[in-house]
Order: sequence, then structure tokens, then C-alpha cells
Amino acid sequence: MGLSTNGTINVNGQSINLNDYPLLKRIDLPEDLRKLYRNQLRQVSREVRQFMIDVICQVGGHFGAGLGVVELTVAAHYAFNTPRDKLIFDTGHQGYPHKILTGRKELLHTIRQKDGLSPFLKRGESEYDVFGAGHATTSISSALGVAAARDLNSDNYHVAAIIGDGAMTGGMAYEAMNNCGLQGRRIIVVLNDNRMSIAPNEWAFSNYFTRIAQKSVVQKMRESIWDISGEFGAWGDRFRKVAGRIEDGVRAVLTPGMMFEALGFKYFGPINGHNVTKLVDLFNFAKTIDGPVLLHVMTQKGKGFAPAEADEKQRLHALGGPTDKITGKAIKSPNAKPKPPKYQDVFGQAAVEIAVKNPKVVVITAAMPDGTGLNPFKAKLPDRFFDVGIAEEHAVTFAAGLATEGIIPIVAIYSTFLQRGFDQIVHDCAIQNLPVVFALDRAGLAGADGPTHHGALDLSYLRIIQDMVVMAPKNEAELRDMLYTATNYGKGPIALRYPRGVGVGVEMPLEMTEIEIGKSETMRTGEDVAILAIGDMVWHAMEGADLLAEEELSAEVVNARFAKPLDTEMIDSICERFNKVVTVENNVVAGGFGSGVLEYISTQPYAHTVDVLVHGLPADDFVGHGQAEELLGELDLMPDGIARVVRGLIGLPARSDLISF
Amino acid sequence: MGLSTNGTINVNGQSINLNDYPLLKRIDLPEDLRKLYRNQLRQVSREVRQFMIDVICQVGGHFGAGLGVVELTVAAHYAFNTPRDKLIFDTGHQGYPHKILTGRKELLHTIRQKDGLSPFLKRGESEYDVFGAGHATTSISSALGVAAARDLNSDNYHVAAIIGDGAMTGGMAYEAMNNCGLQGRRIIVVLNDNRMSIAPNEWAFSNYFTRIAQKSVVQKMRESIWDISGEFGAWGDRFRKVAGRIEDGVRAVLTPGMMFEALGFKYFGPINGHNVTKLVDLFNFAKTIDGPVLLHVMTQKGKGFAPAEADEKQRLHALGGPTDKITGKAIKSPNAKPKPPKYQDVFGQAAVEIAVKNPKVVVITAAMPDGTGLNPFKAKLPDRFFDVGIAEEHAVTFAAGLATEGIIPIVAIYSTFLQRGFDQIVHDCAIQNLPVVFALDRAGLAGADGPTHHGALDLSYLRIIQDMVVMAPKNEAELRDMLYTATNYGKGPIALRYPRGVGVGVEMPLEMTEIEIGKSETMRTGEDVAILAIGDMVWHAMEGADLLAEEELSAEVVNARFAKPLDTEMIDSICERFNKVVTVENNVVAGGFGSGVLEYISTQPYAHTVDVLVHGLPADDFVGHGQAEELLGELDLMPDGIARVVRGLIGLPARSDLISF
Repeated sequence: MGLSTNGTINVNGQSINLNDYPLLKRIDLPEDLRKLYRNQLRQVSREVRQFMIDVICQVGGHFGAGLGVVELTVAAHYAFNTPRDKLIFDTGHQGYPHKILTGRKELLHTIRQKDGLSPFLKRGESEYDVFGAGHATTSISSALGVAAARDLNSDNYHVAAIIGDGAMTGGMAYEAMNNCGLQGRRIIVVLNDNRMSIAPNEWAFSNYFTRIAQKSVVQKMRESIWDISGEFGAWGDRFRKVAGRIEDGVRAVLTPGMMFEALGFKYFGPINGHNVTKLVDLFNFAKTIDGPVLLHVMTQKGKGFAPAEADEKQRLHALGGPTDKITGKAIKSPNAKPKPPKYQDVFGQAAVEIAVKNPKVVVITAAMPDGTGLNPFKAKLPDRFFDVGIAEEHAVTFAAGLATEGIIPIVAIYSTFLQRGFDQIVHDCAIQNLPVVFALDRAGLAGADGPTHHGALDLSYLRIIQDMVVMAPKNEAELRDMLYTATNYGKGPIALRYPRGVGVGVEMPLEMTEIEIGKSETMRTGEDVAILAIGDMVWHAMEGADLLAEEELSAEVVNARFAKPLDTEMIDSICERFNKVVTVENNVVAGGFGSGVLEYISTQPYAHTVDVLVHGLPADDFVGHGQAEELLGELDLMPDGIARVVRGLIGLPARSDLISF
Repeated sequence: MGLSTNGTINVNGQSINLNDYPLLKRIDLPEDLRKLYRNQLRQVSREVRQFMIDVICQVGGHFGAGLGVVELTVAAHYAFNTPRDKLIFDTGHQGYPHKILTGRKELLHTIRQKDGLSPFLKRGESEYDVFGAGHATTSISSALGVAAARDLNSDNYHVAAIIGDGAMTGGMAYEAMNNCGLQGRRIIVVLNDNRMSIAPNEWAFSNYFTRIAQKSVVQKMRESIWDISGEFGAWGDRFRKVAGRIEDGVRAVLTPGMMFEALGFKYFGPINGHNVTKLVDLFNFAKTIDGPVLLHVMTQKGKGFAPAEADEKQRLHALGGPTDKITGKAIKSPNAKPKPPKYQDVFGQAAVEIAVKNPKVVVITAAMPDGTGLNPFKAKLPDRFFDVGIAEEHAVTFAAGLATEGIIPIVAIYSTFLQRGFDQIVHDCAIQNLPVVFALDRAGLAGADGPTHHGALDLSYLRIIQDMVVMAPKNEAELRDMLYTATNYGKGPIALRYPRGVGVGVEMPLEMTEIEIGKSETMRTGEDVAILAIGDMVWHAMEGADLLAEEELSAEVVNARFAKPLDTEMIDSICERFNKVVTVENNVVAGGFGSGVLEYISTQPYAHTVDVLVHGLPADDFVGHGQAEELLGELDLMPDGIARVVRGLIGLPARSDLISF
């Protein structure tokens, strides 16, 4: 991945000339960066930022977080001897400048594309990516593991975790810091505090920082003691001297660092996170300290890109595609057709409609009011909207508590993130039979965010829980009906899962209709083969059946609706009429919907009269990133693929390549 | 559940006479307690404690935690208007005095027995049990849910969570407290600080409390300001006056309450948790405060029972059965035969042996050094033993971090508690293919601890994860081989799961032998039917086959060993030779081992030549508490039951009653 010979990169037909970034051009790896003088680092930072803006405005991608950590990343790779020293980034949103500086700048434009750079850090992609993360709050735990391994291996490199303040709302951060304090080993945690890691965040400490900083007595001492960021030159010595004079406790209360001190960290900050040379000093100083150190760095998400700085809500967390560099607005193709609404927005709108009529209904999000489509709910019914921060465990048990008193909570969490609440679903909701509604967005392949964000497991991990109800709508209108059904259910936990992105484009009845629990829907009748599909695979199966019809193969298509309880009457009837059945789901085949169908059929006397082929995501492969339709296409889950699989079942022995044992 | 007419309770043949507890005798429900005078509460506490000692020494049960909260529980039910006010106990270990005071004292001797009282709080058992909990750290989240529901419902009762310091190591506590602070609503959290909720605990704050309390400057101010527990009489007014005079920040640093203050709580304490009338005052005072309040109460686990107070390690956390009231030693039946070693101890011993030879091997426990059998490891190799506290999420990701640097971590967590780390297994271990070993004790039905402790789901929740290896040993010798296999594996995450309690009693080879991944073992050959069993069900199946042999039914029995990857060669061979196959597992049938067998067979051309019956725990029923063998017996998972199931498959259509759809 050396420099290209002519110094240009072709991005979406536009040429990006590396000669426009004269210092960055010379930096392939961090060792090149470390050959520069300190006083060149500002220029490097400017170039990294500009390069990132130039590329990402062409191709889209996570944006705001990366812009905020340009200086932090430059300083870290300058001060630390990477890859021997280990930098661990919490959630790879922050990782773009890191990728630019670690041999991947010429591939940055491929980010999020199939076979291109991963949107997050990824161990397989670079030795500089120490620990991959698409889910938040894992960095301190993993860094402590690396630090403990270093000590066990009698090695002596530095380990630094870089974590955003949004991720600090997750319980894992606290568990990890507690263990850092107990173990007392050498580890550096950099708190990248932009006050809004994804959206304006829900962290009580932030409020406390603000409150305490405003107190007059504190204010006075503050200036002389801890706001040393303005006089950084002789900083190290001064700080140690001052710190030595002050009682631990008193120092703690005068800084926002009291929690970290209490957990056994030495706390330094807050520091201006956009002064790159001072950050280098800070990191070099931190390297001299024994035991856990917390560096509190203040940054601005979206820094240096006017449209991002102006976006108070999210600081342009991510760009969906090509974007105007001046306005920050998406560049629309002139021929773009109007698209169907997104599932998330249909969900959010339905939640409002239901809650307006039913005063017991509330919604809970874990730091994703935008992504879950709940902003309209927040605007309309703020008292019944709860954003708990990145705290899925709490979200679920909080909902269970609400349900004990007759409130009907809708817990809206992405499929993959709800894995964090698995035990709470079992232990707090299902065992106690509490009626909590789970709305899982991003179910099935999530597309460009890749394996950490695919909701590939939920039909399985929910279906195995005793007494759960697990639904998946065939389209956005059925999503409305299922949400309505779920909020009326009242007998225990009930989940609905639906994909990322836009719906099918069906008409949307104004009224929502309750669906009978465990009742499927026959979409078309047929004679040769039956396809039992669930969720977004229903319309793929329908189009697949159209293709088969062209070959005079008549397929019956059933919208299963429920992965649990299964519509056993329907299965009985299907197996009476067909001896070839294909199940189709956007979920791993292990333990999923089709697996449940096999389990049921195995208990029936007709079991050996039917060939059942379970079709879905591969059981033993983490599907990569790329456009969801590309990925589904490769896996024979688009209409033509489903038709191919059905043909195979009819003409040939059942395919075994999808299930590897 | 009124008082018995003659005032005696028969417990294990001994009579307990309620006349020996004159005040307690008059208390059926908390409303009776609240009719007493304050100055009678000490006597009530003495009687509750003595009653608990008298009963539990006869029948066994959790003990130390309950003894520590006698005064706290008496005071809480006296000060709060239960059940209208809501008391939520974190982890039901503390719940025995609560059960005694809420209509269940005459059933206390049935605790942990089948059809007797639940060992933990249980919603179905009493309206005073607001939220059941067998897993730790759920109380603040659920209490906040109840408090939010109260406010949404425009009601005005009090909500109090009572949480031990051990549970404070869990990230959920922090997530919940953060949300309490953000919501600012009226909620009382009682921190029951006995410094060792289960075992001496791993909470950095405790150390910090001690450290800060020793500082001279703090010491001086402490006496005049916050150690008000000695002069409690006019306490409320005094405190408010003093508190009002002191800057928030300064007060915070002078108390151990700084973390709680930072999270938005008003902090009061520490308070002597064995002074019952002062606790009543404290609770009454707390009821007058708006917003979240934290009451820091110091108690002594095992208080008032000399043998427990003398047990520095665990304060008699639980009694296994009848116990001498003077010595605290178990009363052994004179004819008791020596038992095989426990699985947990075989595991702990094997881990030591492996680690002595392989310096890369370390172990991680989440606050269960005893229960996981790891105390010998801790004694022998303290530098390679990690107790992370009740922090399963951190435990798993910490292990993943260790694995990136070539360390081989064994994460030893009970099956049901590892549910807390599900996302971390997927996201941090499996996606990154990191070789972390998971040792799941208490897999399958855990017996007297009941549904919250049964490890009923692990074969399912692990098997659905891409690329996992999932093993279960047939006996304690194979456990050693599997642990050895796992630590040598090196290709990704690998788990072994084994039951609670004693092994089968087989000979234990000194040397451990590596098992080929995905390779089963044929235990006996047969002609009429094949039984594929896994884990502890293998020897039940073997004995079942003996019973069948008496009827001249010849069963082949295979020890599957692996739930993933399956031994597909074995399955092919079995299905070539048999058309009746029964799978047996101590796991729910949904998505488990048998489900995997069905999935594989469904891909094979011989699929419709075989009847497969998947036998295991019911898919849609939470099995209750009781002796494991009783419970397994009812579910046809003891040898006679397995024989019955096999007979049914051969003579009759396959049973469908275990799988409810």
C-alpha cells in the first residue's frame, strides 16, 4: 500500500491529488510521521482533516467523530511507538484518521464498500488495529486485557484506550475501570469528551462536570490549579508539584476527575484536544506514570468542517453518500426516484400513533433516537420517551420494572446491540412473564456497517427463550400491525424485528390491525413446492416465485410472521400438501426460524414424508460489509437466488453448502 | 398462611415452637409489624434472626446475607408502607428475613425444596416480592422502572432498591444510577455494604472509601460533619442544617459518597446497619427527600451467628443442609458414603495442572472463586488468577484482550450468568476469532436455586454463534480432557459446559488427553435405535439403554461430545444403520444440540429415512426449583425416563408434548 506513482487517487470519477497534502503524502506509516518535527504536526493535522473531508464527501461514511480526533490521533501515533505500543479505539467511528495514518489512506475511498476498507477497526486489516469494535464501550476492558498480557509476558510497551464520552454511559466502562483500579497496572485511558459522541449524550457525569465547574469556590481555585491547559510548556513539572501539595481528596473535588480518582486512576485534564503538540506532551507525560491514568481530552465533533460544526444535533455523525463540501448537504442524483419510507421511520411514526391513543405506552432507546426513528416520539411525547444512553442492559431491566406497574414499554434497540441485553430479556422479562415489547431494527444483514452490525442472530437468540413471542413483518405496513399487536399483547415479552433501510413501498392503511399471535398468512398458493418465508424475505420469496412461475414451477409462498410460536396448523397443512418445503430467513440457519420448523416437524408423524431445506445466512461465516442487496445476492437470498435454491431442492438433493458442521 | 393453631412448625422432625418468638409470632404481615412500638423493634430483630438460625440450621439455605440484613429488613417494613411502597431486593440471597416478615415464616423450612418457597424473591409467590432476582445488579434498573411508572401513573408511593456492595461491581448498577441521576426522580437506593456480598469483593470504591476515610484532614472534619450515626436522635434536622452550609463539592469529598453525588444522588451515610431504630429514622428521613437518594448502610454478613461471624471468607454465605447451631458445621448422616468429586473441583484442579505446565494459561472468575472451584488456582498461581467482580461483560472482553497477545484465558462463569456476556462472546471473541476458553459450570438444571440459575440455554445460545466450538463432557474425567483440549485449541472461542454437583465417580487418569474437535465417541453399539446424548445425559442414556436391554431392545449410545461442530460422519453412519434416533440433552430443545442434528440431517439425501426425536428441557417452560434429579425425573431425563421416551419412539408416533409451538 505504498504511495501511488502519480500521486492521484480516483474517487467516484474525481481525482484527489496527494500533492495537495504535501506532508501527508510522505506519511505511509506512523514511523514516517514520527520522523517529522513537532512543529509540523499542526500542518499534518490540517492535511489529514482536509483529506478526510475531500474523500468522505465523495463517498460517504462516518464523519463527525473522526474529524474530532484528528489531532488526538496524530499526537497519539507521534508519541506512542505504534504498533509496538497498542492504541485501542472504542467504536471505530473514530478510526478514519487512524486508518489514514496507518497505510490505508489510498484505500479510504473504498470504506464501507464490499471488499473495501472496513468501516470500523479490524484486526485482519492492519496490525495497527489492535482490537476491532463496532459496539461501544469495549476498549477499556480489552486494553486492560492487553496490558495484563504485556505484564504476564514480561514486556513493557504502552497500552492506551481511546473512548468517547458517549461510550462512558455503558456499564462495561465502569466494570473495566473498576478492574483497572484493582489491578493497578500501567494503562492509559483517553476520554475523548465531545459531549455528544453519537448524539448529545446521556451521561450524568457530564452534567456534574458542568455544575461543579460553575461553583464559585471551585471556580476560583480552578484557575490556579487545574486549568493548566493554557500554560502547557512547563506543564509536567508544574502539575506534579501542585498535585503533590494538594490532598488527594481535595484535588479530586476540584477536578471533574473524582470518579476516576475513586476508581483508582490518576486523572489529568481537561485538556484542549485540538492542540496537537500539547497532546504529544500529555501523552509523553502519561507514559512516565505508573498505574492507570485517565486523560480527559475535550474535542469538538465535526471539528474543522463548517456544516458539521453547525449541526448541533449530531455534528454530521455520518454522511450517507456524496456530499457537498461547502453546504454539507447530500448531492442527489437528478434522476433519483422517491423511495419508500424507511422501516425505522414507519416504526417511529406507528409508535407515536399508538402512544397517542394508549397513555400506557412508552418508548426506550439506548442512545439511538435518530437511528430508531424515535425523534418524532420524543418531540410529541417527551415524558414517555426515555433515552438511557448506551446502556442496553439497563434499558431492558428498566422496561421490566415499568411493566410490573402496567406501563407498556417498547424497547427499540438494534438487533445486534440487543445482544447486550440477552440475559435481561431472559432473567428479568421472560422468567417473570413481563409484557415488554422489543423492536429490533437492523435485523438481518445491515449492509455497509458489516459483521459487527449485522442482526444475524436475533431470530435464534430470541426463539430459544422460553415463552417469547418473536415476529418479523413482511413489509412496512405489517410492521405497524405487529407493533400494534405487540403493545396489545400483555402476556409476556414480545419482539418484532425488521431490516435496515427502506420498506417495500406498499400502501399504508391508516388503521392498524391486530394480528393473531402465531398466525401466518398465505401469500400465494402453489402446487409444486412451498416456501415458508419470514420478514423481509417474504417479498424476495414472492419475486422468486414469479421467476419460478416463468418455468412453470408453481410455488406456494407463506408469510410465516412468527418465528415463535410457529403456526403449526399451517405447517401441518403444508406438509400434507407438499413434500418439498423451503424456509427462508435473513438470519443464521443455526437455531433460527427454519430450525424451529424442523423441530416441530420432527415431532409429527409425517416427519419423514417431507424434505425441508433451511435457507438463510450461513451458520459458520461472519458475512462481511457491503450493500445489503449485494451481500444477500451472494448468499442466494435475493429473488433469483431463492428461485435457484428452490430449483435445487426439487431437482437435486438438498444443498448442504450453507450449513457447515 | 396464617399462624398455625398450636404454634409449632415441624422441621425435619424437630419442632420449632412459635411461642419462643413472642413478637414474631404476632407478625404475619408487615402491617402487624407496623402496629408495634419502635422500642420493640430490637426484640423483633432478635427473634427474626433466631428464627432464621433455628430453621435454616435444620434445612440449609442461603444464610450469611440474610443474617446481615435482619435489622435493615425490619426497619424497612416498619418505615415503608409495604406492599404499597415498593421494596426491591437485589439478588434474593438477602430475602429470607423479608420472607419471614411477609406471611411466609411458617413455610421458610420448605425453602429451596421442590414446591416449597423459592430461594429468591419471586413475583408469583407474594405481592411483597416486587421484582424477582437470582442474578445480581438488577435492582436499581428495575426500581427506576417502577418509580417512572409511578410518576407516569400519577401515583406517589416510595420505591427503594436494596443492593449489596458485591452487586455494585456490575456495570448495570452504574448504568442505572446514571439514569437515576438524569431522570432525577424520587427513588431510594440502600447500599447494603458488608464489604463482601458473596465473597470478599472486588470493588475499587471500597478500597477508596477506606483510603479516604483514613486521611487526617478528612478524619477531622468527618467527626463533626458526616459521622452522625452516633447522635441520631435529632439527626434529620441537624443534617439538613449542616449539609446546607457546605458546598456540594466539599461535602462530596468528605464522604465516601462522591461517586453517588456525581451521579446525581443525595448521599447519606455510612450508617450502622444493625441499629434498627436509627434505620427507621433514616428511612423516614429519606422519604422526605426529593430526587434520588443513596443510603449507605454498613452491615455485617452473618451477623449474630458466631460460626458465620468467624468465617472470614464467606460468612457462611449458604448452608448446604442441616447444620450444628453452635459450631456451624454440617451435620453428617452417619451412613453417608463418600461421594465422587464435584465437577467444579475437578475443573479447578485441572486448570491448575494445565497452567503449571503452560505459562500462558490464566483463569478469570466473576466473583465466584469458590463456586467455580478456582480457589486452589488462586492459591497456587495468584498472578494468573483474575477475579473481576460481578462483571461478566468485562470478564469476556478482558479475556479477548488477553487472547490478542497470546495469553490463553479460561473464563469460568456459570452457564446462566454467562448470558450477561453473550454480546461480548459474539462481538469481541467470535468475530475476531480470538481463542478464549469458556468453562460453564451449572449447565443444565441447577437444582434448588431454580429457574434463574438453571443453565438451560447455553447449548443453544453458544451453538448459534458462528465458528464457536461447544463441548460437554460425559463425566468428570472427560471434563479434564476437554479443558486440556480447549487450552490447546487456539483457533477461536471454545466452550465446555458441565453440570452442578458431583461427577459420575469414574477413574481419573493422571494424564489429560486431547480430544479431536468434532469427534464423538460410541459408548455402546446397538441394533434397534440410536441415542445421541451429550454431557451429563450420556450416562443417563447408558443406564437407560441398560433398562431397554432388559426388554431386549438394543440401543446404540453415542457420546456426542460436541454440540458444534457436530460429528457429521457419525451422524451419517448412524442414519445409515438406524431409522430411529433420539437426541438427549440437559438444555432446552429449542435451538440446542438436537436441533443442530436436525439441521444437519435436513441437508442430507437420507433425511426422510430417519425419525429423529429431540429430547431435552421443555422449550416453553421455565423449570422450577428442587433437587436436580427430581426435576430431571419429571422431565423424563433420568434413565427410566429416557428409556420411556425411546420406547415411545419405537412403538408409537413421536412425542410432541415436550415441544410446544
